[in-house]
Amino acid sequence: MRDVLPDEVAVRDWALAQILTVYRRHGFVRIETPAVESLRLLLRSEGGENEKLIFKILKRGEKLATAGSAEEMADLGLRFDLTVPLVRYYAQNHARLPQPLKAIQIGPVWRAERPQHGRYRQFTQCDIDILGVASEVAEIELILATTEALAALGLKDLTVRLNDRRLLTSTVAHCGFDPARAGSVFIALDKLDKASREGVGEELKAAGHPPPAVERLLDLLASATTLAALRARLDQAADEPVWRGLQRILDTVEAQAAGRFRLGFDATLVRGMGYYTGPIFEIQHGDSTSSIAGGGRYDRMIGRFIGRDVPATGFSIGFERVIGILMDRGLATDNEPERVALVFDEAMPGLAPVLSLARELREQGKYVLLETRSKRLGKQLQELETRGYRRIGVVGTDGVVEWREPRSDGEGGRRA
Amino acid sequence: MRDVLPDEVAVRDWALAQILTVYRRHGFVRIETPAVESLRLLLRSEGGENEKLIFKILKRGEKLATAGSAEEMADLGLRFDLTVPLVRYYAQNHARLPQPLKAIQIGPVWRAERPQHGRYRQFTQCDIDILGVASEVAEIELILATTEALAALGLKDLTVRLNDRRLLTSTVAHCGFDPARAGSVFIALDKLDKASREGVGEELKAAGHPPPAVERLLDLLASATTLAALRARLDQAADEPVWRGLQRILDTVEAQAAGRFRLGFDATLVRGMGYYTGPIFEIQHGDSTSSIAGGGRYDRMIGRFIGRDVPATGFSIGFERVIGILMDRGLATDNEPERVALVFDEAMPGLAPVLSLARELREQGKYVLLETRSKRLGKQLQELETRGYRRIGVVGTDGVVEWREPRSDGEGGRRA
Repeated sequence: MRDVLPDEVAVRDWALAQILTVYRRHGFVRIETPAVESLRLLLRSEGGENEKLIFKILKRGEKLATAGSAEEMADLGLRFDLTVPLVRYYAQNHARLPQPLKAIQIGPVWRAERPQHGRYRQFTQCDIDILGVASEVAEIELILATTEALAALGLKDLTVRLNDRRLLTSTVAHCGFDPARAGSVFIALDKLDKASREGVGEELKAAGHPPPAVERLLDLLASATTLAALRARLDQAADEPVWRGLQRILDTVEAQAAGRFRLGFDATLVRGMGYYTGPIFEIQHGDSTSSIAGGGRYDRMIGRFIGRDVPATGFSIGFERVIGILMDRGLATDNEPERVALVFDEAMPGLAPVLSLARELREQGKYVLLETRSKRLGKQLQELETRGYRRIGVVGTDGVVEWREPRSDGEGGRRA
Repeated sequence: MRDVLPDEVAVRDWALAQILTVYRRHGFVRIETPAVESLRLLLRSEGGENEKLIFKILKRGEKLATAGSAEEMADLGLRFDLTVPLVRYYAQNHARLPQPLKAIQIGPVWRAERPQHGRYRQFTQCDIDILGVASEVAEIELILATTEALAALGLKDLTVRLNDRRLLTSTVAHCGFDPARAGSVFIALDKLDKASREGVGEELKAAGHPPPAVERLLDLLASATTLAALRARLDQAADEPVWRGLQRILDTVEAQAAGRFRLGFDATLVRGMGYYTGPIFEIQHGDSTSSIAGGGRYDRMIGRFIGRDVPATGFSIGFERVIGILMDRGLATDNEPERVALVFDEAMPGLAPVLSLARELREQGKYVLLETRSKRLGKQLQELETRGYRRIGVVGTDGVVEWREPRSDGEGGRRA
């Protein structure tokens, strides 16, 4: 886990405000769940690898004293994603929530991963989910809202990739794999964007899958560059509604995209999570092969909590990755009000002149910093300039302000 | 801990944005620290009672297997306030931070308190702190910024109460108490706003304090309704700079208040925390005797971490209490853009007319909800109205929109 310095917090706050505004304009409402959930809930969530990374909270008092094994020492844990808490929230509160529910969730999650560059044990997730809509209208809305939110951050070069878990299953069966082992095929396919075709083929064969099936699958995926091409090869293998649904998403989103982002079918897209049941999607930015947002439909997850299935689909922005891109671009101050510093003498009686001037400038929306004049005024003014204060007034004890000439971009500017 | 429903999240987000804007205009910058800190840090923080309420996090893997006693089972804990993390953050990052540091911190904290009405085990704190300013300019800035932030939330009836820990110490010694037991006198005095004078007197005598000292103290506090009155009674007992400093804060803030809030000296103000070293202050709203914000100077806390004292003073808004007041007032939608709902037929080919109309309205800043038309249209429209959608368009498969007459306040309106 890490501390966040002021310059990055400013960018994070700005980005969150942009995203929230777009999502609210799309009719989503923000909800909040606590950071701590019952360990029983977290452990029965099909969270896969993430369940092993839960930070567990020690019981207290008598409950701890009577705990026998290490397993009994904890009954609470920190959430490792926002989907499990959302489903629990919906199960407990659905009578008081709009139906269908269009939810925004933004907040920290925790995973006890080995620390590595750019990965932290506490990080922010930023999700939207639609609970209660079975038709592709949900996927269409999620994709339109999320691409618009990313565009509002200045990320213009976006590519949306779309696939369907049911097509993946049909494809794997069609090529002659054992359907019961489809999961292990998916895990290997998920590496196609990072590893070579040969590497993935070797991995599948090493895992004991029949070599003819492996070759057939890799051939088929290489040639199925459009939905129509895949359909021509698979034909009856997958259900008619699946083809029609995907085509509807592609056509409708394409018509709205109007050049604002690219959109395409990708037969190799897998997504990690085990709980997806239908369309899945990712967004890439620029030339990077890693995604900055991902999601899909998970129609059978809520049913395990409330006894009846509720159709559900969600899209999650990789917030830390997006902030990394924005920080690299140095977007920090472009969107902020002007910063004014007033340096004054402590000996000024009553402080009224400087406080009144500060109030006046703040009422104009400016960020106004007051500092008492230090012995080394030159150094003080230079530091204020490197902190982004372009307009600096030195106030005398008589209240008279001597404004410094604003420096040009080349000389002053922001600390890197 | 609790879930927060959408209506309350909207109010919380709005309130935080208002507070942040005011604080940024006052030259403060937001910082962020992780929720989890080392247990050793949390336990050596003079946090008093709060240290007993720490949620501890179970060690993992080998570290857990080799832990002997229950004390060795945890090495991390959830933060119980934002002051301890701030001091740790400053100690670790001060070389990369502005000097002096004017920090905003907003975030959840956790305390394993017995659940009771209106008190939760996770709650939000909202602090500003100035590190590195020894003069009363810091207190003046904190009070002006915090009263302005609360006023921006529509809380107009504010009273600021001011005292000084050093005056309290002098007063207690002057009245004949054992200076070494001043802490127990403060704890009893802290109840003067809730309990009667007689009750507090009995408590002090029961704790073994000399009855003449108790009577002298209660008399003195009852008559010392102004700083001048207390000074006339105490005279030389407290240092000249303390009187001058408090008077400077009172005069300067009063001149700026200009009727926007009330301000007064209060010889009975104590504040709970043990770490205060100088001026202390609270804000009350309306007729309530409980405070909605509180703070003070703590000049000797950072020194324990970095080996040299750094003057520090902070002000914390009781965010959950403020949200309670705003929710009671029903401020939810007053500050939000218009909400428009478009109800359309799933059979519409391509969805282009409804998606384009939605985009157009969103570009005007409106919150636009899309819903597919349900079988019971009347019930659906009624529910949208109770959710605050005053403008509702029913879109036919041909794209023609039939706008519903907006209902008047009396009929429709928001769900309570």
